[in-house]
Amino acid sequence: MKIQQTIKRNRLGLLFQQGSFGIEKESQRVHADGSVVTTEHPKVFGNRSYHPYIQTDFAESQLELITPPNKKPEDSLRWLSAIHQVVLRSLPENEYIFPLSMPAGLPSADQIKVAQLDNPEDVAYREHLVESYGKNKQMVSGIHYNFQLDAELIRTLFNAQTEYQSAVAFQNDLYLKMAKNFLRYQWILLYLLSATPTVDADYFKDGSPLQLGQYVRSLRSSRYGYVNAPEIVVSFDSVEKYVETLEHWVASGKLIAEKEFYSNVRLRGAKKARELLQNGIQYLEFRLFDLNPFEPYGIGLKDAEFIRYFVLLMIWLDETADQQGVELGKARLAEVAFEHPLSQTAYRQEGEEILNRLLAMLNEINAPTEIVDIVTEKLAQFADPAQTLCGRLVQAIEQAGGYQQLGAELAQRYKAQAFERFYALTAFDNMELSTQALLFDLIQKGIKTEILDENDQFLCLQFGDHIEYVKNGNMTSHDSYISPLIMENKVVTKKVLQKAGFNIPQSVEFTSAEQAVASYALFEGRAVVIKPKSTNYGLGITIFQQGVANREDFAKAVEIAFREDKEIMVEDYLVGTEYRFFVLGDETLAVLLRVPANVIGDGEHTVAQLVAMKNDHPLRGDGSRTPLKKIALGDIERLQLKEQGLTVDSVPAKGQSVQLRANSNISTGGDSIDMTDEMHESYKQIAVGITKAMGAAVCGVDLIIPDLTRPAESHLGSWGVIEANFNPMMMMHIFPYAGKSRRLTQNVIKMLFPEIR
Amino acid sequence: MKIQQTIKRNRLGLLFQQGSFGIEKESQRVHADGSVVTTEHPKVFGNRSYHPYIQTDFAESQLELITPPNKKPEDSLRWLSAIHQVVLRSLPENEYIFPLSMPAGLPSADQIKVAQLDNPEDVAYREHLVESYGKNKQMVSGIHYNFQLDAELIRTLFNAQTEYQSAVAFQNDLYLKMAKNFLRYQWILLYLLSATPTVDADYFKDGSPLQLGQYVRSLRSSRYGYVNAPEIVVSFDSVEKYVETLEHWVASGKLIAEKEFYSNVRLRGAKKARELLQNGIQYLEFRLFDLNPFEPYGIGLKDAEFIRYFVLLMIWLDETADQQGVELGKARLAEVAFEHPLSQTAYRQEGEEILNRLLAMLNEINAPTEIVDIVTEKLAQFADPAQTLCGRLVQAIEQAGGYQQLGAELAQRYKAQAFERFYALTAFDNMELSTQALLFDLIQKGIKTEILDENDQFLCLQFGDHIEYVKNGNMTSHDSYISPLIMENKVVTKKVLQKAGFNIPQSVEFTSAEQAVASYALFEGRAVVIKPKSTNYGLGITIFQQGVANREDFAKAVEIAFREDKEIMVEDYLVGTEYRFFVLGDETLAVLLRVPANVIGDGEHTVAQLVAMKNDHPLRGDGSRTPLKKIALGDIERLQLKEQGLTVDSVPAKGQSVQLRANSNISTGGDSIDMTDEMHESYKQIAVGITKAMGAAVCGVDLIIPDLTRPAESHLGSWGVIEANFNPMMMMHIFPYAGKSRRLTQNVIKMLFPEIR
Repeated sequence: MKIQQTIKRNRLGLLFQQGSFGIEKESQRVHADGSVVTTEHPKVFGNRSYHPYIQTDFAESQLELITPPNKKPEDSLRWLSAIHQVVLRSLPENEYIFPLSMPAGLPSADQIKVAQLDNPEDVAYREHLVESYGKNKQMVSGIHYNFQLDAELIRTLFNAQTEYQSAVAFQNDLYLKMAKNFLRYQWILLYLLSATPTVDADYFKDGSPLQLGQYVRSLRSSRYGYVNAPEIVVSFDSVEKYVETLEHWVASGKLIAEKEFYSNVRLRGAKKARELLQNGIQYLEFRLFDLNPFEPYGIGLKDAEFIRYFVLLMIWLDETADQQGVELGKARLAEVAFEHPLSQTAYRQEGEEILNRLLAMLNEINAPTEIVDIVTEKLAQFADPAQTLCGRLVQAIEQAGGYQQLGAELAQRYKAQAFERFYALTAFDNMELSTQALLFDLIQKGIKTEILDENDQFLCLQFGDHIEYVKNGNMTSHDSYISPLIMENKVVTKKVLQKAGFNIPQSVEFTSAEQAVASYALFEGRAVVIKPKSTNYGLGITIFQQGVANREDFAKAVEIAFREDKEIMVEDYLVGTEYRFFVLGDETLAVLLRVPANVIGDGEHTVAQLVAMKNDHPLRGDGSRTPLKKIALGDIERLQLKEQGLTVDSVPAKGQSVQLRANSNISTGGDSIDMTDEMHESYKQIAVGITKAMGAAVCGVDLIIPDLTRPAESHLGSWGVIEANFNPMMMMHIFPYAGKSRRLTQNVIKMLFPEIR
Repeated sequence: MKIQQTIKRNRLGLLFQQGSFGIEKESQRVHADGSVVTTEHPKVFGNRSYHPYIQTDFAESQLELITPPNKKPEDSLRWLSAIHQVVLRSLPENEYIFPLSMPAGLPSADQIKVAQLDNPEDVAYREHLVESYGKNKQMVSGIHYNFQLDAELIRTLFNAQTEYQSAVAFQNDLYLKMAKNFLRYQWILLYLLSATPTVDADYFKDGSPLQLGQYVRSLRSSRYGYVNAPEIVVSFDSVEKYVETLEHWVASGKLIAEKEFYSNVRLRGAKKARELLQNGIQYLEFRLFDLNPFEPYGIGLKDAEFIRYFVLLMIWLDETADQQGVELGKARLAEVAFEHPLSQTAYRQEGEEILNRLLAMLNEINAPTEIVDIVTEKLAQFADPAQTLCGRLVQAIEQAGGYQQLGAELAQRYKAQAFERFYALTAFDNMELSTQALLFDLIQKGIKTEILDENDQFLCLQFGDHIEYVKNGNMTSHDSYISPLIMENKVVTKKVLQKAGFNIPQSVEFTSAEQAVASYALFEGRAVVIKPKSTNYGLGITIFQQGVANREDFAKAVEIAFREDKEIMVEDYLVGTEYRFFVLGDETLAVLLRVPANVIGDGEHTVAQLVAMKNDHPLRGDGSRTPLKKIALGDIERLQLKEQGLTVDSVPAKGQSVQLRANSNISTGGDSIDMTDEMHESYKQIAVGITKAMGAAVCGVDLIIPDLTRPAESHLGSWGVIEANFNPMMMMHIFPYAGKSRRLTQNVIKMLFPEIR
């Protein structure tokens, strides 16, 4: 298989670098001191029988976090970050994720609970592992790195050769070459990336093989790690031989199942090895990698890229390791694993040679300079073992006073980091917060999600065969096409709501004062506001809150309005407070009061200081990357202060409410206050009725209500509809400034997938 | 009841002029010669048991066209126009609508078929009428004018008085005042607006009461018209007396039912008169009016406005006619009805006095000058009877050589006019043609329709309790909200369609030639087009229709594209013709081929002449008020001609196809050709599948197909999807340039109201 020649001749460098990447990461849930917990897998993560992102491995305490496959390693790492943020924020307050592969503070064996899976076979398998290896070994964690070559590349390489007749046979041998060469040279990755230099003595059944203070490069990849008995040799010569030898060990009872074969490379693409003969190998799973404790999620992008090009080198090389080479590689791995992390490796020369060949390959395929830099850096680590991951880790353990201490410290730090912007999924920060909140819940509950268009907030959700699309957090198939069109058109909305019998404020426009006054009878006794059609700073507005009492006052108000504009409006004036009702289906899920930007005096600080203090609130920021917006101190706010006889330097009295805006929008620094429990049920029912009249499934209804505690009556004095909004905002309900959080995104999921209990 | 004082004192002039108006218009279906047909009511008009717009009156041949109530008389006339256009275009080719009230060319009595209604009571009632009056009298047609005062006006007037305790009693007396004064002065409207000066002698059972050549003002309102026996006197003194006397006549058998009381004013608002006692009179129905043959739809806007203010005057007047006054009015009506149309009326003085009082009222209430002009014009007709409608009509009859001849002539002219823009409803021409087409079908089939927002093409449809909203002709509740959002986003559309397994052309973008050539292997053997990202006049485009054969050609094409832009695209090239599939639900209803603007030479005319000739096609116009667009002869067309070695002055050979545009858009003069029957079924199924994948109910799918007669195969060589469009255009299918019309608006209605058989 002369791959590099074909790539060079056909200039396939770009195609060669395509592929698909997925990451599985195991880790232990631990206490604040780093010791493994004995609690059950948290119920909040839904059902493990289908969860695509959050699983358990051997034990209840051992999380397995799985990214979907992505075309770019960086996207897999974004998913890994998002899944971690979901898990860390969902864990009980006193639980953390241990950042090291070797567990610390293990409970006694009888306290370690095997994962409570639904499938009895899965449970039986784990019981068998306990028998064969003991529980402690099973508690070791690592990273599995899945890699698939681009189908076009394989097709093109196959077309460019004459040796193989069968495309499947060619594909199998291509992946086998990658697998065998990987096994031959895996020790290099171990040297550079291993991170299991030590473990507690009580991890070993029969006493620690390490002397006091002895560090090694990788306990996990040594024979004290989670490895098969040395006699279990499986052939990688061909898929046929692989299947044959693997089936032999299972038949002989040395392995309870094929999956007990813990090779650092697994051939993937079939449930049973034998099916590979038919379907061909689809991708490889590389299982060598220790958790990198310096990365919050166990692996960094540079290392993920390094591994990617390293495995590509494994097919680029002209030679293919034979079984002897594979065994040699495994022996070297064991040997290097037991070297001291700060010592030079015995095979430095081979390591440097391979990385130099990798650099040559990068040059041939026009790889990005970033990866050249990464490889160059790794190459230098052969001369300076202290710079290897394990070298640095040993130093950190010494500094921390022990590896459990280091792990506990890092676990706490990473959990705290995950809460810094607790309302966001930082890896997906270029999407709206509401979509991030939805994504959070989808990951938590295990609904398979594909981001179809990040800029457009377009998601594809799947549960079994059931597919749903969501845009902007709550635009779904459950609303009919005509609903947003009705709501978009204020005239039509009014007609529809009026026809359905809801209290709608009326407005009449006039182009002459004479005409307006001639219509006086229309308004007599009604609470109305008279205003110029285009208002500026409230000039020309008269409000008859108690109803128009006489023609003279009305005529005067009309005249005042006409001073500001050629057209005026006489509108029903609704006395009361505006509330936003978030309706989904048959229920008002949340009611919110929006209060104009304000501060409350304390008799000590100036307005400017009070604003700065209020702006320190974690929810406040630019208003797009945060749920609430910082209060500005611009012209409008200063004018508002002036009207209250204040400046930014005034010191308001204790308890004095200082208003900084006339409008109550959240986007101008307003406060959001949840009033769901305070609101009388009758208004919630009205909001549901309005939503139904709009033909909508999800709707934001704005009502003006004078007294939210009194039952609704059927006249404008009791309540009136201001607006019905499609795609209503959710963040202000999910993260209100005050009052209870309403996790509406979960309701959206329930609406879309009622079959999930 | 001192109404005018209250109006003046409270300046209620504007409110006084509000109200609600509806028109019912009877007329006979006739042959080209004006003689009444004996055919059944056309099936195309759906079911008379619920039809709100198109009914039959006494006979099968007698259409009754009904407008919904409107706030402005002009809107009622727009509806009347629309209903007429629907009816005229739906009638058999040899049928017309007779524009005169008195029928001509009546069939023998046994040939006149009484309306075949579902309700046996309705049929029995008509049988009774035949007994009492004979069939001929039943064939007379007229206009019924419904008028309702504004509820706010009545409320305000009631509040301003002290005489009445009960609002219902006040409302009843207000309407009774209007009714009685109307009966007192109705002869004035007859003088001005009557139009039944003569009729055929055989209309009369016992010989014509008219001497040869004698004309009268209104046969219809005379005792030879459709009136009760003289002894049937019903009291308008109070609602109680009205109910009492009316019930008396029914009980005595002189009337078979209350509705046989043919007063020129009917009190409306209840099924049975007795219910008026409870509910109050809701509106009045004025039945005096003859069809105006000079108006295509029987009544003109000026007369409708005149009637409106005339009936307002009836409550403005301080005096209220008593029963004696009513009887006096009826006597005068009969007398004036029998005057010669060109003679002065005996009651000119009273007529002029009333119209002068009307002018005074208009002045008091600040009425628009238009109505003042109308009344002034009518006032002058007392001095010049030749200017009355009947006066003019008599002259026209004389000119035409008989009233049947005149009627036939006008009937033919009005029908021809209704076909002038046969694809539009001209009264609703400010809406899109597709909404006009839908409205046509809704009126035809009798679905109650309210125009919620004309500018926004927003309709509310109702059948029984079932309400549906439609925007832009086919945006409805049947599509889900997410479907158009998917279709709006080309990236998401592609992903969704690809996932569902449809043939999607791929495209890759490159920012460097090196990078593009490095990807050569991706494209080898594939039909692709290589083009600059922003194309100008097709510069820099290379098409490999047979597939890319070698790297050198590919590299050359890449280089050419990069000369025009910094970014280029390599796209799958689909060989074939683009077709538009219109899918609704499970069916492809129409397939259209769009051909770029073109003319075919005849060896005689220049290109410019050929274009002018083609542009004469009735479907071509500005493209918004017409289904097709006229071909322009601008720069782009001239450039296109130049490429074919032609100018606008060239004379193409006979049969030579001259292309005037490269693009096939209808909006640039392209031809639309229906191919529904030619298209292989398999592609129609694919279009349905694509629609389903989009989650859409209505979708316009663009497919490229090389051979529409061969079954579809599952590769891009057989077909490929270009686009899926929501709210797809319908007019090009309904009125194609060539091929069969597909009335898609009917399918939209069927989708919305499957319960209508």
